[in-house]
Amino acid sequence: MTEYRIEVRVTPRRGILDPQGNAVAGALGTLGFRGVREVHVGRLIVFHMDAESEGEAKERGEAMCRQLLANPVTEDFSVQVAAAPGSAR
Amino acid sequence: MTEYRIEVRVTPRRGILDPQGNAVAGALGTLGFRGVREVHVGRLIVFHMDAESEGEAKERGEAMCRQLLANPVTEDFSVQVAAAPGSAR
Repeated sequence: MTEYRIEVRVTPRRGILDPQGNAVAGALGTLGFRGVREVHVGRLIVFHMDAESEGEAKERGEAMCRQLLANPVTEDFSVQVAAAPGSAR
Repeated sequence: MTEYRIEVRVTPRRGILDPQGNAVAGALGTLGFRGVREVHVGRLIVFHMDAESEGEAKERGEAMCRQLLANPVTEDFSVQVAAAPGSAR
Protein backbone atom coordinates (compact mmCIF):
# COMPACT_ATOMS: atom_id res chain seq x y z
CA MET A 1 0.00 0.00 0.00
CA THR A 2 1.23 3.45 -0.86
CA GLU A 3 -0.08 6.66 0.58
CA TYR A 4 -1.37 9.06 -2.02
CA ARG A 5 -2.37 12.68 -1.88
CA ILE A 6 -5.59 13.20 -3.80
CA GLU A 7 -6.71 16.59 -5.03
CA VAL A 8 -10.26 16.94 -6.28
CA ARG A 9 -11.39 20.05 -8.14
CA VAL A 10 -15.13 20.58 -8.43
CA THR A 11 -16.22 23.41 -10.70
CA PRO A 12 -19.59 24.65 -11.99
CA ARG A 13 -20.28 23.19 -15.41
CA ARG A 14 -19.87 25.64 -18.30
CA GLY A 15 -23.15 27.31 -19.20
CA ILE A 16 -24.66 26.64 -15.77
CA LEU A 17 -25.50 29.72 -13.74
CA ASP A 18 -22.72 30.42 -11.21
CA PRO A 19 -24.22 32.78 -8.61
CA GLN A 20 -21.15 32.60 -6.37
CA GLY A 21 -18.93 33.54 -9.30
CA ASN A 22 -21.20 36.45 -10.19
CA ALA A 23 -21.21 37.65 -6.58
CA VAL A 24 -17.40 37.57 -6.44
CA ALA A 25 -17.15 39.41 -9.78
CA GLY A 26 -19.50 42.12 -8.50
CA ALA A 27 -17.67 42.49 -5.19
CA LEU A 28 -14.27 42.73 -6.91
CA GLY A 29 -15.63 45.49 -9.15
CA THR A 30 -16.95 47.36 -6.11
CA LEU A 31 -13.50 47.13 -4.52
CA GLY A 32 -11.97 48.73 -7.60
CA PHE A 33 -10.53 45.69 -9.36
CA ARG A 34 -11.26 46.39 -13.02
CA GLY A 35 -11.38 44.04 -15.97
CA VAL A 36 -12.14 40.85 -14.07
CA ARG A 37 -14.14 38.43 -16.20
CA GLU A 38 -15.48 34.89 -16.20
CA VAL A 39 -15.27 34.38 -12.45
CA HIS A 40 -16.03 30.82 -11.38
CA VAL A 41 -16.05 29.55 -7.83
CA GLY A 42 -15.52 25.88 -7.17
CA ARG A 43 -14.40 23.58 -4.38
CA LEU A 44 -11.04 22.05 -3.71
CA ILE A 45 -10.99 18.84 -1.68
CA VAL A 46 -7.61 17.49 -0.65
CA PHE A 47 -6.97 14.30 1.30
CA HIS A 48 -4.63 11.38 1.85
CA MET A 49 -5.52 7.78 1.09
CA ASP A 50 -3.78 4.40 0.86
CA ALA A 51 -4.08 2.49 -2.40
CA GLU A 52 -2.24 -0.25 -4.30
CA SER A 53 -1.50 1.98 -7.27
CA GLU A 54 -1.95 5.48 -8.60
CA GLY A 55 -4.63 4.14 -10.95
CA GLU A 56 -6.61 2.64 -8.08
CA ALA A 57 -6.32 5.88 -6.10
CA LYS A 58 -7.62 7.88 -9.06
CA GLU A 59 -10.49 5.46 -9.64
CA ARG A 60 -11.57 5.64 -6.01
CA GLY A 61 -11.29 9.42 -6.05
CA GLU A 62 -13.58 9.57 -9.09
CA ALA A 63 -16.06 7.24 -7.41
CA MET A 64 -16.09 9.60 -4.39
CA CYS A 65 -16.90 12.50 -6.73
CA ARG A 66 -19.79 10.63 -8.33
CA GLN A 67 -21.20 9.54 -4.96
CA LEU A 68 -20.56 12.54 -2.74
CA LEU A 69 -18.18 15.31 -3.69
CA ALA A 70 -19.70 16.69 -6.88
CA ASN A 71 -23.23 17.35 -8.08
CA PRO A 72 -23.36 15.34 -11.32
CA VAL A 73 -26.05 17.59 -12.79
CA THR A 74 -24.37 20.96 -12.39
CA GLU A 75 -20.68 20.36 -11.70
CA ASP A 76 -17.59 18.94 -13.34
CA PHE A 77 -14.78 17.35 -11.41
CA SER A 78 -11.19 16.33 -11.92
CA VAL A 79 -9.02 14.13 -9.72
CA GLN A 80 -5.26 14.50 -9.44
CA VAL A 81 -3.18 11.89 -7.65
CA ALA A 82 0.37 12.23 -6.36
CA ALA A 83 2.46 10.14 -4.01
CA ALA A 84 2.18 11.67 -0.56
CA PRO A 85 5.41 13.19 0.78
CA GLY A 86 7.16 10.55 2.87
CA SER A 87 5.04 7.67 1.55
CA ALA A 88 6.39 4.17 0.88
CA ARG A 89 6.87 4.84 -2.81
CA MET B 1 -2.24 44.41 -22.01
CA THR B 2 -2.30 40.66 -21.90
CA GLU B 3 -5.16 38.52 -20.75
CA TYR B 4 -4.27 36.22 -17.89
CA ARG B 5 -6.07 33.30 -16.32
CA ILE B 6 -5.81 33.54 -12.55
CA GLU B 7 -6.39 30.58 -10.28
CA VAL B 8 -6.77 31.24 -6.57
CA ARG B 9 -6.71 28.40 -4.05
CA VAL B 10 -8.04 29.18 -0.59
CA THR B 11 -7.52 26.48 2.03
CA PRO B 12 -8.13 26.27 5.77
CA ARG B 13 -4.95 27.09 7.64
CA ARG B 14 -3.16 24.09 9.15
CA GLY B 15 -4.21 23.53 12.75
CA ILE B 16 -7.48 25.41 12.31
CA LEU B 17 -10.64 23.36 12.76
CA ASP B 18 -12.00 22.31 9.36
CA PRO B 19 -15.61 21.26 9.96
CA GLN B 20 -16.33 20.83 6.23
CA GLY B 21 -13.31 18.54 5.91
CA ASN B 22 -14.42 16.52 8.92
CA ALA B 23 -17.95 16.21 7.50
CA VAL B 24 -16.60 14.96 4.17
CA ALA B 25 -14.29 12.47 5.92
CA GLY B 26 -17.22 11.12 7.94
CA ALA B 27 -19.49 10.86 4.91
CA LEU B 28 -16.83 9.07 2.84
CA GLY B 29 -16.40 6.55 5.67
CA THR B 30 -20.15 5.98 5.80
CA LEU B 31 -20.14 5.33 2.04
CA GLY B 32 -17.50 2.63 2.52
CA PHE B 33 -14.38 4.53 1.45
CA ARG B 34 -11.77 3.36 3.94
CA GLY B 35 -8.46 4.87 4.89
CA VAL B 36 -9.24 8.46 3.94
CA ARG B 37 -7.32 10.90 6.13
CA GLU B 38 -6.57 14.58 6.47
CA VAL B 39 -9.52 15.81 4.44
CA HIS B 40 -9.46 19.54 3.81
CA VAL B 41 -12.07 21.47 1.88
CA GLY B 42 -11.15 24.77 0.31
CA ARG B 43 -12.30 27.07 -2.46
CA LEU B 44 -11.07 27.44 -5.98
CA ILE B 45 -11.66 30.78 -7.67
CA VAL B 46 -10.79 31.05 -11.35
CA PHE B 47 -11.09 34.16 -13.51
CA HIS B 48 -9.64 36.11 -16.40
CA MET B 49 -8.05 39.53 -16.07
CA ASP B 50 -6.01 41.94 -18.19
CA ALA B 51 -2.65 43.06 -16.84
CA GLU B 52 0.64 44.48 -18.13
CA SER B 53 2.67 41.53 -16.88
CA GLU B 54 2.41 38.20 -15.11
CA GLY B 55 3.88 39.86 -12.02
CA GLU B 56 1.23 42.55 -11.99
CA ALA B 57 -1.52 39.95 -12.45
CA LYS B 58 -0.18 37.94 -9.52
CA GLU B 59 0.08 41.01 -7.31
CA ARG B 60 -3.49 42.05 -8.06
CA GLY B 61 -4.70 38.49 -7.44
CA GLU B 62 -3.00 38.49 -4.03
CA ALA B 63 -4.55 41.86 -3.19
CA MET B 64 -7.98 40.39 -4.06
CA CYS B 65 -7.31 37.52 -1.65
CA ARG B 66 -6.37 39.87 1.17
CA GLN B 67 -9.39 42.11 0.58
CA LEU B 68 -12.12 39.66 -0.35
CA LEU B 69 -11.40 36.10 -1.36
CA ALA B 70 -9.73 34.66 1.74
CA ASN B 71 -10.25 35.04 5.46
CA PRO B 72 -6.81 36.21 6.65
CA VAL B 73 -7.36 34.77 10.13
CA THR B 74 -8.29 31.20 9.25
CA GLU B 75 -7.27 30.60 5.64
CA ASP B 76 -4.19 30.44 3.45
CA PHE B 77 -4.23 31.31 -0.22
CA SER B 78 -2.07 30.86 -3.27
CA VAL B 79 -2.37 32.59 -6.64
CA GLN B 80 -1.32 30.98 -9.91
CA VAL B 81 -1.15 33.02 -13.10
CA ALA B 82 -1.02 31.76 -16.66
CA ALA B 83 -1.50 33.46 -20.02
CA ALA B 84 -5.11 32.91 -21.05
CA PRO B 85 -5.57 30.73 -24.13
CA GLY B 86 -5.79 32.98 -27.16
CA SER B 87 -4.43 36.05 -25.34
CA ALA B 88 -2.15 38.64 -26.95
CA ARG B 89 0.97 37.03 -25.53
